Amino acid sequence: MREHGGNLDLAQQRFGGRAEDWIDLSTGINRLPYPVGEIAAHHWQALPSRSEIEALHRAARHAYGTAAPVVATGGAQAVIQLLPQLAPRGRARILAPTYNEYAPVLSAAGWEAEEARELDALVGANLAIVVNPNNPDGRRHAPKDLLAVLPHVGHLVIDESFADAVPELSLASEAGRPGLLILRSFGKFYGLAGLRLGFAIGHAADIAKLAAASGPWPVSGAAIAIGCRALRDDAWARTTSARLAQDCVRLDGFAQSQGWRLVGGAPLFRLYETPDALGAQEKLARAQIWSRVFAQNPTWLRLGLPGAEAEWSRLAEILAR
Amino acid sequence: MREHGGNLDLAQQRFGGRAEDWIDLSTGINRLPYPVGEIAAHHWQALPSRSEIEALHRAARHAYGTAAPVVATGGAQAVIQLLPQLAPRGRARILAPTYNEYAPVLSAAGWEAEEARELDALVGANLAIVVNPNNPDGRRHAPKDLLAVLPHVGHLVIDESFADAVPELSLASEAGRPGLLILRSFGKFYGLAGLRLGFAIGHAADIAKLAAASGPWPVSGAAIAIGCRALRDDAWARTTSARLAQDCVRLDGFAQSQGWRLVGGAPLFRLYETPDALGAQEKLARAQIWSRVFAQNPTWLRLGLPGAEAEWSRLAEILAR
Repeated sequence: MREHGGNLDLAQQRFGGRAEDWIDLSTGINRLPYPVGEIAAHHWQALPSRSEIEALHRAARHAYGTAAPVVATGGAQAVIQLLPQLAPRGRARILAPTYNEYAPVLSAAGWEAEEARELDALVGANLAIVVNPNNPDGRRHAPKDLLAVLPHVGHLVIDESFADAVPELSLASEAGRPGLLILRSFGKFYGLAGLRLGFAIGHAADIAKLAAASGPWPVSGAAIAIGCRALRDDAWARTTSARLAQDCVRLDGFAQSQGWRLVGGAPLFRLYETPDALGAQEKLARAQIWSRVFAQNPTWLRLGLPGAEAEWSRLAEILAR
Repeated sequence: MREHGGNLDLAQQRFGGRAEDWIDLSTGINRLPYPVGEIAAHHWQALPSRSEIEALHRAARHAYGTAAPVVATGGAQAVIQLLPQLAPRGRARILAPTYNEYAPVLSAAGWEAEEARELDALVGANLAIVVNPNNPDGRRHAPKDLLAVLPHVGHLVIDESFADAVPELSLASEAGRPGLLILRSFGKFYGLAGLRLGFAIGHAADIAKLAAASGPWPVSGAAIAIGCRALRDDAWARTTSARLAQDCVRLDGFAQSQGWRLVGGAPLFRLYETPDALGAQEKLARAQIWSRVFAQNPTWLRLGLPGAEAEWSRLAEILAR
């Protein structure tokens, strides 16, 4: 398995403690999740119906500000798994560094997968992939700059897994144009990654292809029940976005006091440069706070945002040692 | 979308009533489900960890009586969606009539998909598919007869979605042999189809391929939590199997009183022949009991088993009219 955040079992093996003792900041998952609430029995027992899935699609269109075709999937990752089927095998270019699943999934399916460093270098690709804002470095691209690439590639995939709290970056409102495909993650902003829910938004032909490849029941009844509620809760989204913005400033302050330099970030994670990221990870891990390091970049330390006030205190305390 | 049971929204559109008014017997889903119980917060919030997914795989091996490699997926249907990737495109033969997803999924991926009427006719296929016991007619194949086919096909896929209560039919204990792939559904026997959980059991190379295609987080935290408990609850499985056997006899008695002929069945559904299946479906539907008919076979009526005693009474009452 490739290196990912959220691998708390590895942290436990190395540093001990029970899962519930740990504060997992190794991912960009909101630690103050949308309330799960009651789930009606039929959502557990029955197959999701076509009308329930369509209600979920409408809720997603509402939340993401789009009128374009949508398909719900078992997480944004499930769309990534299907990308090789979006078009005949060809050349994919991925704006890098970024989330490490794109290149291997495409390569395994016989695509030529290359990294690109700038948007201009995507031109000519059959499939171009940009994560916006980017994980792990928070790099941002203006919608107009991305749209300028669209005519020069076969498909342009914009992974907006971390865009919920920065809607001004989103191209969802432009979805429907031929060749443009938007990926959204439900679990990160809503703090429910275990639910496995994500969406692809795009041109009718592409969405039909992804829907066919996903089969008739691609998401769980619980994902439908919770997703429909959460995606229509504008007040919760607004409050959460505001809170995340404040929390980023707070975490950056903690980092500054350590002498860590902010490389960049999105509203759910921050990437810092530190002379010894592994050492910093170990220091935090001894206090059961898990963080993310990057094999290919030994100075990078990525931290998600603590949730409850007690988590902030624990982080402050260990950093003060 | 292809014709399936469980499409209660269509029943409501045609015959009215709220979803909770209906008794849905259009599927083979156990209506007395395994208790969902409490789900720990971290199963909702965190990405499923590698060790949690492995615990689920061990629970599945326990329940299905196998030591072979296993991969959990978002339902047996999710494995079907991946079958075209199991081997280079070729000729698939499907023992028919059966579940109507196999042929179109394979055809859409460029496979030649043919129906076969007898096991012998599978010989020579690159991919041979048998549902055992079969849906919708309950046809059963002895494990030794299926194993006799294995050397003469590229891959032999046995869909055991309805085999939980007839473990003597299962080839799971033989899984691991090259070319043999077993599909299991969690949702039907455990009555939790909305959870989206299924398994593929087979040779290490095939399971590795399916696992890679499924991605790192193929099932939800709730599926892991409930699946791990349910698949290790031998007492519940024994009691349920015994109850289903009795209930089949009871339902067959109801059908006999209507002059319907039993075509066959598995412990979760019964297929009856009646001069006017559509008429029978309508009669039941006017009392908010939903059943399954088959466009290609106008005399077939499939019924799942009622659950609570009140459901049996309502069925008896409407049939007595």
